[in-house]
Amino acid sequence: MDTLKIRRVAIDTYHENVAYMNRECGIYRAEGFQALSKILISANGNKAVAVLNVVDDKEIVEPGQLGLSEQAFSQLNLEEGGLVTVNHAGPPKSMDAVRRKINGERLDQNDFDDITRDIADSRYSKMEMAAFLVATGQNNLDRDELLFLTRAMLNSGERMNWHEPLVADKHCIGGIPGNRTSMLVVPIVAAHGMLIPKTSSRAITSPAGTADTMEVLANVNLTPDQMLDIVREERGCLGWGGTARLAPVDDMLISVERPLGIDSQGQMVASILSKKLAAGSTHLIIDIPVGPTSKVRHMRQALALRKLFEFVGDRLNLHLEVMITDGRQPVGRGIGPVLEARDVMMVLNNDPNAPADLRQKSLQLAGRIIEFDPDVRGGQGYAIARDILESGRALVKMNDIIKAQGEKEIDLTAGELCYEVLADRDGYVVAIDNFQTAKIARIAGAPMDKKAGVDLLKKLGDKVEKGQPLYRIHAEFSADFKFAKDLARQDSGYLIGDDADQLLIPQIAF
Amino acid sequence: MDTLKIRRVAIDTYHENVAYMNRECGIYRAEGFQALSKILISANGNKAVAVLNVVDDKEIVEPGQLGLSEQAFSQLNLEEGGLVTVNHAGPPKSMDAVRRKINGERLDQNDFDDITRDIADSRYSKMEMAAFLVATGQNNLDRDELLFLTRAMLNSGERMNWHEPLVADKHCIGGIPGNRTSMLVVPIVAAHGMLIPKTSSRAITSPAGTADTMEVLANVNLTPDQMLDIVREERGCLGWGGTARLAPVDDMLISVERPLGIDSQGQMVASILSKKLAAGSTHLIIDIPVGPTSKVRHMRQALALRKLFEFVGDRLNLHLEVMITDGRQPVGRGIGPVLEARDVMMVLNNDPNAPADLRQKSLQLAGRIIEFDPDVRGGQGYAIARDILESGRALVKMNDIIKAQGEKEIDLTAGELCYEVLADRDGYVVAIDNFQTAKIARIAGAPMDKKAGVDLLKKLGDKVEKGQPLYRIHAEFSADFKFAKDLARQDSGYLIGDDADQLLIPQIAF
Repeated sequence: MDTLKIRRVAIDTYHENVAYMNRECGIYRAEGFQALSKILISANGNKAVAVLNVVDDKEIVEPGQLGLSEQAFSQLNLEEGGLVTVNHAGPPKSMDAVRRKINGERLDQNDFDDITRDIADSRYSKMEMAAFLVATGQNNLDRDELLFLTRAMLNSGERMNWHEPLVADKHCIGGIPGNRTSMLVVPIVAAHGMLIPKTSSRAITSPAGTADTMEVLANVNLTPDQMLDIVREERGCLGWGGTARLAPVDDMLISVERPLGIDSQGQMVASILSKKLAAGSTHLIIDIPVGPTSKVRHMRQALALRKLFEFVGDRLNLHLEVMITDGRQPVGRGIGPVLEARDVMMVLNNDPNAPADLRQKSLQLAGRIIEFDPDVRGGQGYAIARDILESGRALVKMNDIIKAQGEKEIDLTAGELCYEVLADRDGYVVAIDNFQTAKIARIAGAPMDKKAGVDLLKKLGDKVEKGQPLYRIHAEFSADFKFAKDLARQDSGYLIGDDADQLLIPQIAF
Repeated sequence: MDTLKIRRVAIDTYHENVAYMNRECGIYRAEGFQALSKILISANGNKAVAVLNVVDDKEIVEPGQLGLSEQAFSQLNLEEGGLVTVNHAGPPKSMDAVRRKINGERLDQNDFDDITRDIADSRYSKMEMAAFLVATGQNNLDRDELLFLTRAMLNSGERMNWHEPLVADKHCIGGIPGNRTSMLVVPIVAAHGMLIPKTSSRAITSPAGTADTMEVLANVNLTPDQMLDIVREERGCLGWGGTARLAPVDDMLISVERPLGIDSQGQMVASILSKKLAAGSTHLIIDIPVGPTSKVRHMRQALALRKLFEFVGDRLNLHLEVMITDGRQPVGRGIGPVLEARDVMMVLNNDPNAPADLRQKSLQLAGRIIEFDPDVRGGQGYAIARDILESGRALVKMNDIIKAQGEKEIDLTAGELCYEVLADRDGYVVAIDNFQTAKIARIAGAPMDKKAGVDLLKKLGDKVEKGQPLYRIHAEFSADFKFAKDLARQDSGYLIGDDADQLLIPQIAF
């Protein structure tokens, strides 16, 4: 069998391995490879599957060499110049199961195990993953299949073990700007003495993720060892989850799901629960915000989703509770890392001007988690959480966590470029669009520019007079500032009505 | 708006545009692009959408430059060093319709028009095309939607006009090795004086396409102008269809469908009819072979498929007839370009040893096409076709077409390495596996090695004695030869039974 010398090609192809072969290469011609065919690269037991690109430039790759993108190179774990053999990779065997699913069949646990194993081994191309996601999206999975998928995804990677009987976590399904409850729940729950090793994501399409906001106050790029030390000492932490190798198939599927804009309930349940179980959680609160511009728009949808979470959670031995919350508008006032960090610190400082909704929601979530503690009487969680917050113990705990993770020089002033969006009539705020306010904050520069974002001055039900400011846009760069102002002028995201009773909350009452 | 200088990167990425940007590039950092995000490249009204790869090697692309794969470079139609601007491309608008389809909605003509336009403009990534294919596969399209899709695909490219009232064509849905009827139908029909400008495909997964087999006898790489001249003179031709820009969306979808191994009836109908209509056909015979190892396994499936072809064909003004044929075994004796060309020439030469099934099927197809001629009485087509063949006029016409396309030095001897696969018992041939015999021929080297393949000595119903040869494997290279022999030893593809009445043809009678 002929061999090729590998050569590192400094091209970043993200989650997809790419191999580069010169068109003049003997193996290319003999094997009848085609551009974009999948090849299997083997050397000393290491294997990688890559998509083939054909190169006509010897400076990139010569005949006799096999160029590898950064991802493929690191996966093979060889020195440059190391010898490899290449073969047609062929489609992964488990695509048979995907085709059966496309044809309307029901899959079993073995099928899902095979599929996730092949995905984890990089045997699936992006388009094969897309086929799997569409075939298993939108009501195409029954709840047993969803359980099989979640279990298979969980088993696709490492699983942490905290060696404690109760490891608490919370998760919001997302979509609500300013919803930084984790930064309050973690210090409250940890101050109560419960273990809550929280990792969070960075923003992908939103103006800030918890990791982006926490980064205003502290370092969030923690190694697994650092995280272990911090949690051992403080009982909680607020790190970025991006570096852990937990449920890797979930990340790979998300990298396809997100650009496709498909987002089925089943896949969301499998994604969240596999990640949390892999992180070693034993007790979990899920926050499902409901509102006309939230991910979940109707109460009946929220209830169906709750049942799915409960069904899968129960069978995987996760103590799980779902809280359906008010998702009609952003939580707190700030949208964007610095503005949100300011809101969080105001609540922790018991500032009388702290946003009441952020405080209230965080206490409810923390209270429910505290009631997981077998020593806490049912119904007492909220009062305990409030006591921890009002006594200043939550603030002390937060400062300890910040110090443990690595304190930043804290500057909570918003971007200097500031524009006030004004009410165009007298009346009451009857609707605030989560999507539009998030989009304006993002265009203003959040989360890349920590100080950029939107600061809400009026919330649902507030009385306003024509010309009064509804919110402020903050930015640091004039181009961003201009685009954000233009967007707000097209559509402010606010609706002013004659009467506070007009509030656009058809089937929901909180 | 900042600009970048384009640089041609000699990497062949097939149907997918790729752009390369240096990680140090100011625009990369400012715009917040990510690896694999889609970018819109604009210059003087030319636009191209490409997938972004991030490069850390200045020799491939420097900051301030935008590298473009061959496909993207040629699409922009600029000189090297030309200035372009780049923006986030965002998902194509018509993905909204795809998501609606995923959610179970019915799409209308506008939706399919938008989708095919975006695909034709390279706005769809491979994974978006996969999502579309899965969402519209397997009974997910009703017949009106199928009509909309076919019409949209037809309108996605150029359409030929032969300026004649009757332009005949035939098409087989595939799956049967040795089925080279086109090379007999075209000379017979053209000798009758009807216009039949046939283009065919090369093999992709089969041991030979008509273009591969015709290439043994003549040049098949015809420019559109050459084809026009030949057809004007000869009334028919047998060219390769790969160079025409007809229904380009069909090719792009096939480039995703094939590696995924998904193949829905609806997409097959849309693909075939859009291509034939774009090629200017007015009258079309569709050959649907049915058999246990054919693409269509049951008569009821063939009948349903026939209805679909008829429904869409009628509404697009195509005079279409479907012939359901015997697909229980390969047609003729040879499988592989040279062996098949030999069979074809034997039939044209009225050789008494010519394969009777190939001759018979070709005469039936040609007869049905000849009956499209308004001057031919119903039921007379077969006799006219037989007369054209037996009189030698078909052979003369074939030789004229070969000369017009460019004659090859014809050598119809099969590969020198030869192995006979023997019957392991006395009895009758009761089954021949189309897949297995095709696979053996392909492993032996077909279609790349024209002389490689399989030569069948026994067919269904033939009496055999233990030790008698069933077929011969021919190859030119010893490695291929060995693999093909190994495969035939594992499974010869033949089943010998006690009784000819055992023939495995449950619901079919021909």
